[in-house]
Amino acid sequence: LMRRILILAEGKFSKAESKTANCVIRYLPRNVAGVIDSTRAGKTAQEVLGFGGTIPVVGSLREGLALRPTELLIGIAPRGGEIPAAWRRDIEAALRAGVDVANGLHAFLSDDARLVKAAKAGGTRIRDLRKYESPLRLPKAKPPRRKAKVVLTVGTDCNVGKMTAAWELVEALKRRGKRAAFVATGQTGIYLAGWGVPVDAVKSDFVAGAVEEAVSRAANRAEYVVVEGQGTIHHPAYSGVALGILHGARPDALLLCHETGRSHVAGYPSRRIPPLRQIICMHEDAARWVRPAKVRAVALNRMRLTRGEAAEAALSAARKDSRLPVHDPVTRKGADALARIFSGK
Amino acid sequence: LMRRILILAEGKFSKAESKTANCVIRYLPRNVAGVIDSTRAGKTAQEVLGFGGTIPVVGSLREGLALRPTELLIGIAPRGGEIPAAWRRDIEAALRAGVDVANGLHAFLSDDARLVKAAKAGGTRIRDLRKYESPLRLPKAKPPRRKAKVVLTVGTDCNVGKMTAAWELVEALKRRGKRAAFVATGQTGIYLAGWGVPVDAVKSDFVAGAVEEAVSRAANRAEYVVVEGQGTIHHPAYSGVALGILHGARPDALLLCHETGRSHVAGYPSRRIPPLRQIICMHEDAARWVRPAKVRAVALNRMRLTRGEAAEAALSAARKDSRLPVHDPVTRKGADALARIFSGK
Repeated sequence: LMRRILILAEGKFSKAESKTANCVIRYLPRNVAGVIDSTRAGKTAQEVLGFGGTIPVVGSLREGLALRPTELLIGIAPRGGEIPAAWRRDIEAALRAGVDVANGLHAFLSDDARLVKAAKAGGTRIRDLRKYESPLRLPKAKPPRRKAKVVLTVGTDCNVGKMTAAWELVEALKRRGKRAAFVATGQTGIYLAGWGVPVDAVKSDFVAGAVEEAVSRAANRAEYVVVEGQGTIHHPAYSGVALGILHGARPDALLLCHETGRSHVAGYPSRRIPPLRQIICMHEDAARWVRPAKVRAVALNRMRLTRGEAAEAALSAARKDSRLPVHDPVTRKGADALARIFSGK
Repeated sequence: LMRRILILAEGKFSKAESKTANCVIRYLPRNVAGVIDSTRAGKTAQEVLGFGGTIPVVGSLREGLALRPTELLIGIAPRGGEIPAAWRRDIEAALRAGVDVANGLHAFLSDDARLVKAAKAGGTRIRDLRKYESPLRLPKAKPPRRKAKVVLTVGTDCNVGKMTAAWELVEALKRRGKRAAFVATGQTGIYLAGWGVPVDAVKSDFVAGAVEEAVSRAANRAEYVVVEGQGTIHHPAYSGVALGILHGARPDALLLCHETGRSHVAGYPSRRIPPLRQIICMHEDAARWVRPAKVRAVALNRMRLTRGEAAEAALSAARKDSRLPVHDPVTRKGADALARIFSGK
């Protein structure tokens, strides 16, 4: 039975707002049955995102169930963080109708007795991607020896393409014949890879320990380990998460991810994003506090640029600002160039 | 009924290892009935710590209960992090005997059905100081305006005296007639103050938001808010916790805490503690990523120095290294000097 994913992105299916939906459409396109967003019903993913082909957008969970999905993915955060009662009713119906549910929110569906009962009745499964029991694990006193080279994607803000860059870098390294492993640290990466650590849901004391353990596991079976970063170290809300990953992963090299056109931290209109060169220094300084690592390249997200000319100019501008190689990881050429940089000479 | 605290510090009651026990003895000496540590039974707190007077050390929970405590405080972490079965049996007996239990460990006693039942039977209460439900709260998009001046204690390592320095600074500010409030971020501070945020047990996404909220609450009723820091930003395990507090508290000034004689990060023998001047720069750099703040003074912990001469020389050495005023906050003179620095022109 082929996996058919129905993605809930109600009111938010767009280039900028539905990160999880967009990544799943990009990397599992043949497995996506449809997207629910009543405000864009009738369109295709291609029309909304510029990729994703004929994947249909439907107006309700009911219409979505008609696409015969095997699982429903809750990929966006509702306003206010709490799951609305209407969603719960639909999720319950899906579970009873034989559809598994995967949920990336901080609020867990498996804490809801009604939904657990529905899953039992439907013979279905609830997967809370951010559920994590926080074992009392700290980084080892003596850092583990690794043969693998570890690359961490860091960013100028949230939602600029750290997961995408990491994923594409792994794929490009594999194309070069390297054994490369992806370490997921967020809901979308965990959903795509099937494993990982939801660091933003880990008790803060144990972030670095959890990341170290995941990196060690990946390093045992790969020459290159690419770790998905989260947030950024200058983010008013998430700086601690980002620093915990940086120090827990102990990377050998950093890939800085940026989206052209971002000037302020999303959600924090008074926080300007510093110039690329400054962000590079900040990360190299912070890495050095525990273990030195250099930013070797910039991955540029040009998703919101449409004209070819502007997209080309964006690369040059970022090269000038960062004084580093800059590539767009979602182009084959860009990902291959990044793989060359991170795999040596 | 006077509060009488029995402190469990089995095998670890000492200047260096029983932080929680030592702070409670220092700040609530008249409320401490005794300390349990079979390896030091028969001694007094004074003999072990150099303060604490005639508070007795006893060899078992049973002997401790003979001191007629009203509450039992589990103030140390057992080896391995898990609560040993023998402790659980004793805790159960205490709860049944009418003694409340306060627990600062990451493992919660209120998750143990046997203990919950015992508390019900004994009419007693279990307080898990690190229990925190992580509301989905982020720092506000527009930072709240505060009239209070906010000071954060940061450190060169864990367990160097950040809580003590913060507590003593608040007391000294009060002696100067200022309205000063203490914001606890760890188990001991929360136990002493009766409120606070156990940041190391908060889901990493919400550390900064939780700290911002606690600081705002304190700032509404004080001219000076002193926030207890945790860990340090160069700690291999806890750097994320420290940075989350730094960015969430948005302090106006920093007080760097150090213990004379520390050369390496506790538990990480390969991690040298950088020179004071360098740690000052690191903190000022990291603060600037979100909001600039300067380190204004150093609080020096000389607990393990005994000879008066060495203790005096330690202050001068730290002054030279930090190029800042250095004071010992557990001396009246030192705390008053710090209060002058942070309250004045």
